[in-house]
Amino acid sequence: MPKRVTISDVAELAGVHKATVSRALNELTSHQVNTTTARKIQRAAIQLGYIPNIVARSLRTSLSMTVGVIVPDLTNPLFPPIIRGIENYLTARGYTALLANTDGQDRHEELAFESLLARRVDGFILATGHSQHPLLVDAYHRNIRVVMLNRGSLQVPYPLVTGDDADGIAAAVDHLAELGHTDILHLAGPQDFSTSHTRAEAFRSACSARGLRPRMTVASALNVNAGEQSTDAFLRSGKPLPTAIVASNDLLALGALRSLRHHGLDCPSDVSVVGYNDMPFAEDFSPPLTTVRVPHLDLGSEAARLLMEAISTEHQIPLTVTLPVSLIVRDSTAPPRDR
Amino acid sequence: MPKRVTISDVAELAGVHKATVSRALNELTSHQVNTTTARKIQRAAIQLGYIPNIVARSLRTSLSMTVGVIVPDLTNPLFPPIIRGIENYLTARGYTALLANTDGQDRHEELAFESLLARRVDGFILATGHSQHPLLVDAYHRNIRVVMLNRGSLQVPYPLVTGDDADGIAAAVDHLAELGHTDILHLAGPQDFSTSHTRAEAFRSACSARGLRPRMTVASALNVNAGEQSTDAFLRSGKPLPTAIVASNDLLALGALRSLRHHGLDCPSDVSVVGYNDMPFAEDFSPPLTTVRVPHLDLGSEAARLLMEAISTEHQIPLTVTLPVSLIVRDSTAPPRDR
Repeated sequence: MPKRVTISDVAELAGVHKATVSRALNELTSHQVNTTTARKIQRAAIQLGYIPNIVARSLRTSLSMTVGVIVPDLTNPLFPPIIRGIENYLTARGYTALLANTDGQDRHEELAFESLLARRVDGFILATGHSQHPLLVDAYHRNIRVVMLNRGSLQVPYPLVTGDDADGIAAAVDHLAELGHTDILHLAGPQDFSTSHTRAEAFRSACSARGLRPRMTVASALNVNAGEQSTDAFLRSGKPLPTAIVASNDLLALGALRSLRHHGLDCPSDVSVVGYNDMPFAEDFSPPLTTVRVPHLDLGSEAARLLMEAISTEHQIPLTVTLPVSLIVRDSTAPPRDR
Repeated sequence: MPKRVTISDVAELAGVHKATVSRALNELTSHQVNTTTARKIQRAAIQLGYIPNIVARSLRTSLSMTVGVIVPDLTNPLFPPIIRGIENYLTARGYTALLANTDGQDRHEELAFESLLARRVDGFILATGHSQHPLLVDAYHRNIRVVMLNRGSLQVPYPLVTGDDADGIAAAVDHLAELGHTDILHLAGPQDFSTSHTRAEAFRSACSARGLRPRMTVASALNVNAGEQSTDAFLRSGKPLPTAIVASNDLLALGALRSLRHHGLDCPSDVSVVGYNDMPFAEDFSPPLTTVRVPHLDLGSEAARLLMEAISTEHQIPLTVTLPVSLIVRDSTAPPRDR
């Protein structure tokens, strides 16, 4: 790398004192420098390609202006819009999001967390969804700023930003009940993910509130393959075929669509399917998927806002911010055949 | 944040000298410490929650062990698998990828680049696809290590990792010609993206090699909406309907599918459609998309490998690594109706 331009070079070219350059280029003190001088300094900085040494600055101010964002699976298309929401908020405030992807592996999650912490991030947004994890308890006791996204912790009072899961599942069950379905299966996610757990509970109570008997099968992971395998196993089990399936997320729903197709069953005429998230491309599936739309951009920006608040104050308040969701009806749901 | 544990604390608990701890916890010197002592030090470090100060270490060794990865659009589902490929390679080598997303905006790209450079990343993987950009020329003259991914620069000799675009497009045209299509439209991407440009050129030469007249329409961006709008405009133009469309990527192909549907045209019986990338969910579209599969994980890991090489040597060699691609035939292609 070539020799780095320093603040002294900028001061020399602008014909001012080093301290003036420092004041002019720092957001907190730039108002102390008059406009003409400030412009002269900015022009010199741009001309020389001066880059403030953020690493060195982080050692002086104790803030690194970076935030760690840990997600379980970037290939689940609900995360990119969430990340865009986080970045929209942070970038406007001079913060950078350092992103890490854990592939849903506990060990990767710990490594990513420690690695980011060693780079002195000012806090974390965690969307990895383990409701019980030693990592979180440890982080809490080390006084590390964390905001949970989508899925909360059952152990420590960190703030949480989430969609209204109970409302979303109730809307899905209502929609199916109105179409005439009385035998609905919940294709649940692993129950150690708090979102999966919350949605399963919401399904049970929505069914019992409407006098329906809840049936449930649990997938081994939150991806398309797990959804397909779980539906395959259910269809092969000899249990009576439900007339509708409410899946815990769109990837499981997509797996269910694949499984139904391979078993020669038509969606929606044999079995209706409802997903959850309204992930990108849900409208392009075959058939286009009825699902619960979660405002992913807003989830991201709310999480970033809460984290900025937590970083700038002494005490972190364990708020839960719940964003409204809405049912999007497409072609994967219809009245049951024998009605 | 609580007081940070130092190397002295670890030395005290382990009952050894500070220099021994330093040697034991550094990959390059750990072999100098005997196993029993090393285990004692590791246990003490874990017990105290000691985190090596990577920021401070980066100032001493001049390497930060971080790499900046800049992508144009995380919501394009081909990028998450590429990122996973990059991370698989880097993580195993103690490197962390700091990810930035530009939303395809030149200004965001510059900011992300400068911000990551200020955090002293050791190099960049750029997948933003501008074949001509002042940023790249500037970076090259500043001797900054960069590997281009997917799309090369026309201005500076940076290494490039890409799929075999010419071969992929030729395979798509061959497939359609074998089905009996003679009137094929290329739904191209913006021609200032080098991939779009390469694929358009490949389309022209594949057609002329087979005695077909190439027709082309150019979308304003590489996303679903642009593909839909561009196809809409073509269908409304009164020009004769082609019997097949080869799109420059799967998102454009998906836009074409939506447009055909809204115009009451069936794919494949009225118009066949071929995409490019085999992005996740391409098999779930309606109809499942025939497309050219690009090995995204391998693209990512090759780019990471080239960058590690560039960082560890004085001179960067402007290699081009081309990975093979393959046609995946699904239900969006069929013989033309009048055959």
